[in-house]
Amino acid sequence: MKGDLHLLTARDSVQAIVGGSLSSEALVEACLKRISETDGTLKAWAHLDENSALEQAREMDRVRRTGRATGLLHGVPVGLKDIIDTANVPCRRGSALFDNRVPDKSATVADRLIEAGAVIMGKTKTTELAFVHPTDTTNPHDPLRSPGGSSSGSAAAVAANQVPLAIGSQTGGSVIRPASFCGIYGFKPSRGMISRAGVLQTSTTLDHLGTFGRTLEDAALLVNAISGYDPQDDASLPRPRPDFLGGALAETQIEPAIAWLDFPFHDLMASDTREGMEAVLEALGDRVERLPVADTLADLAEVHITIHEYEFCHHLAEPLAASWNKLSHTLQPVVERGRTISDAQYQDALEVRRSAFLFFAQLYNDFDAIIEPSATGEAPLISSGETGDPIFCRLASFVGLPSLTLPILVGENELPIGVQLIGGREEDSRLLRTASRVQNVLKEAD
Amino acid sequence: MKGDLHLLTARDSVQAIVGGSLSSEALVEACLKRISETDGTLKAWAHLDENSALEQAREMDRVRRTGRATGLLHGVPVGLKDIIDTANVPCRRGSALFDNRVPDKSATVADRLIEAGAVIMGKTKTTELAFVHPTDTTNPHDPLRSPGGSSSGSAAAVAANQVPLAIGSQTGGSVIRPASFCGIYGFKPSRGMISRAGVLQTSTTLDHLGTFGRTLEDAALLVNAISGYDPQDDASLPRPRPDFLGGALAETQIEPAIAWLDFPFHDLMASDTREGMEAVLEALGDRVERLPVADTLADLAEVHITIHEYEFCHHLAEPLAASWNKLSHTLQPVVERGRTISDAQYQDALEVRRSAFLFFAQLYNDFDAIIEPSATGEAPLISSGETGDPIFCRLASFVGLPSLTLPILVGENELPIGVQLIGGREEDSRLLRTASRVQNVLKEAD
Repeated sequence: MKGDLHLLTARDSVQAIVGGSLSSEALVEACLKRISETDGTLKAWAHLDENSALEQAREMDRVRRTGRATGLLHGVPVGLKDIIDTANVPCRRGSALFDNRVPDKSATVADRLIEAGAVIMGKTKTTELAFVHPTDTTNPHDPLRSPGGSSSGSAAAVAANQVPLAIGSQTGGSVIRPASFCGIYGFKPSRGMISRAGVLQTSTTLDHLGTFGRTLEDAALLVNAISGYDPQDDASLPRPRPDFLGGALAETQIEPAIAWLDFPFHDLMASDTREGMEAVLEALGDRVERLPVADTLADLAEVHITIHEYEFCHHLAEPLAASWNKLSHTLQPVVERGRTISDAQYQDALEVRRSAFLFFAQLYNDFDAIIEPSATGEAPLISSGETGDPIFCRLASFVGLPSLTLPILVGENELPIGVQLIGGREEDSRLLRTASRVQNVLKEAD
Repeated sequence: MKGDLHLLTARDSVQAIVGGSLSSEALVEACLKRISETDGTLKAWAHLDENSALEQAREMDRVRRTGRATGLLHGVPVGLKDIIDTANVPCRRGSALFDNRVPDKSATVADRLIEAGAVIMGKTKTTELAFVHPTDTTNPHDPLRSPGGSSSGSAAAVAANQVPLAIGSQTGGSVIRPASFCGIYGFKPSRGMISRAGVLQTSTTLDHLGTFGRTLEDAALLVNAISGYDPQDDASLPRPRPDFLGGALAETQIEPAIAWLDFPFHDLMASDTREGMEAVLEALGDRVERLPVADTLADLAEVHITIHEYEFCHHLAEPLAASWNKLSHTLQPVVERGRTISDAQYQDALEVRRSAFLFFAQLYNDFDAIIEPSATGEAPLISSGETGDPIFCRLASFVGLPSLTLPILVGENELPIGVQLIGGREEDSRLLRTASRVQNVLKEAD
């Protein structure tokens, strides 16, 4: 195992570290070695401080050796998207607007990681301001392809076995889509589960944090560690959190009830994705019911974009105006368009969101999850200048529903395509349980 | 059981609420009824909002019924010492200096309670600024006696079965002493386990938060819920927390090694306390070793007082100066004395504290706990104007060691006297395990 420590899951690592058969230092060294070997091509890291990582690892080893308390992620390295602050560490947010930015306070999730005993490895690359303009990060499966965005570095680093865990964010499709393109698990819990305090605000209504892992259990474990009530985030739910990992581990025999909604944007699926999804639906058999979509939701994608662009331009009005020339030519037209959205259009969009709440609250009385592809197809070529269409992820971001992607399908270029499951609000544990069951059914059908 | 819901432990209550056989509303109603029946004499509450408590309870019942996540303290009422802020609720700190104070932000522990699903019942009475001048709270065992201070209301409310749990604070002996006088369990974890953000600062070096329960497990469970890393508190430990409840529940067969230190202040023990402690030491047999005390620690009590009074006068310099006439005649001379302490005297005291760290770090290589009485004797008469001598609690507050009190002894007036156990820094789980074992040994010897 010695030479392959970087391949360990987070759960196996914690167990070995707490049990004394593995040191956090050895694990972190293995991950740093893997990073130094692969990051020349992958370019997943915006900031990496080897000394700090090793120091944290040795401290966690010391804590364990002295018989002190161990944590949920004791000694396990975690990557943070470069829009999540950690005190006294550069956080550039993928933008020349924030070139010299070094926050003096950590995000709540960073503090929770410290409480869990994790080793914060550094910052992973984000698209410019977590929006459209790509990083130079490459896809671990094919260096000519995009890893997806905006959490490009987080997804790529986990998929390339550089770290077992990373945190990303999703406003449109920035967790689920890159996880799909990189062939790993991505999990975006219900809105309000994870505090966004200390994270770049791009859209207060739509911003979510989410996690990446190479197993469903790892992605859930990380949420157990970082979720919690935080009054610094207005959306934070003032009540107990589910046991996410418990949901992922539940060995349920109850057959899930899954809905397939006929959204108008389904015609954007590439043919390999369409064929793959048909095969998945066939294997799931009568566990899946096909449903029409309410008229009010037909424009879901446009309405989502209205809220996103309007809020982006308002939250960031000051830096955008002050340093216009530091914006990419990809982002400038988006901002220009966003600035033309009227208050009335924005209020109308929020009204559609409220009616969507009702529709989905009812739907989840009868179904455990909605099934969708996680992306339109395989990862796009970097030369396209795009990070992929987030269309299939907008629903969960828009309504604040929990969603996750399972790396199940393989496209025509042998690249991964994820299968997405979307659960009811605050029904994260039920969603994870359903995902675990779906995964088992599909494995058996294989 | 219906009529006696207020007698349930927190652990039993949570289990019944989560299992669906008890509603939080019924439990809170029973506690409110108990409060209305007993608080005329007890006077434990500084602020009680029945409607808010019932609303929180109904919300926790709703969360449970909808199959949502439940918390460590789901639906269980908790009292907070009136120096702990909750947003938009009066927090007078037992002082006319803060008569109209309504904070707009909650203390970190209050937020953690919300995350745990607890029902915050209100504020329990504190002595003036958590220092010497008593409240009008009475002892549940004898209305002519003091409940102890400074967490008078918290200890009295739990002992009188008004609430199963309460939070207090200790700078000298303000958790362990009132728990001893009221005949319940008190637990003050290691310095840095529980965040003090949002709590009146009386001494940054010595202030601790602690818990009260009618079982050791309940006091530990509450710490599981409220402890955690919080960078808002400089003393907060940036690493994982022990499983406090797990320590209290551990059924160890390993015999503990306990130290009895011959402190010079031992001659302050009342005769009933001395006899009781001798009986305890006899029952524990060769598990206890009697040790001399290092010369540097002989003046521990004086040095503790120097730090406490110096820091109190500095932290509160502004309000003390601005509203001198609003201070009690008990507190005024203490402040006058505190103001005469020089910086050099204060620095010398901190130096003694550092040497105490070394002494105790070594001691706990060989011992699981130090045993002491929790107070000099039974609760003093209210007519004495005093809340009792904190002398036996100063050690743990001074060095930041975890300590707890077990309601084991009975004094000459049939009033309770606690047995105190003091553990090594951050060895809270080991201390709780030791306490559980000691309690069992003493029960068997009975």
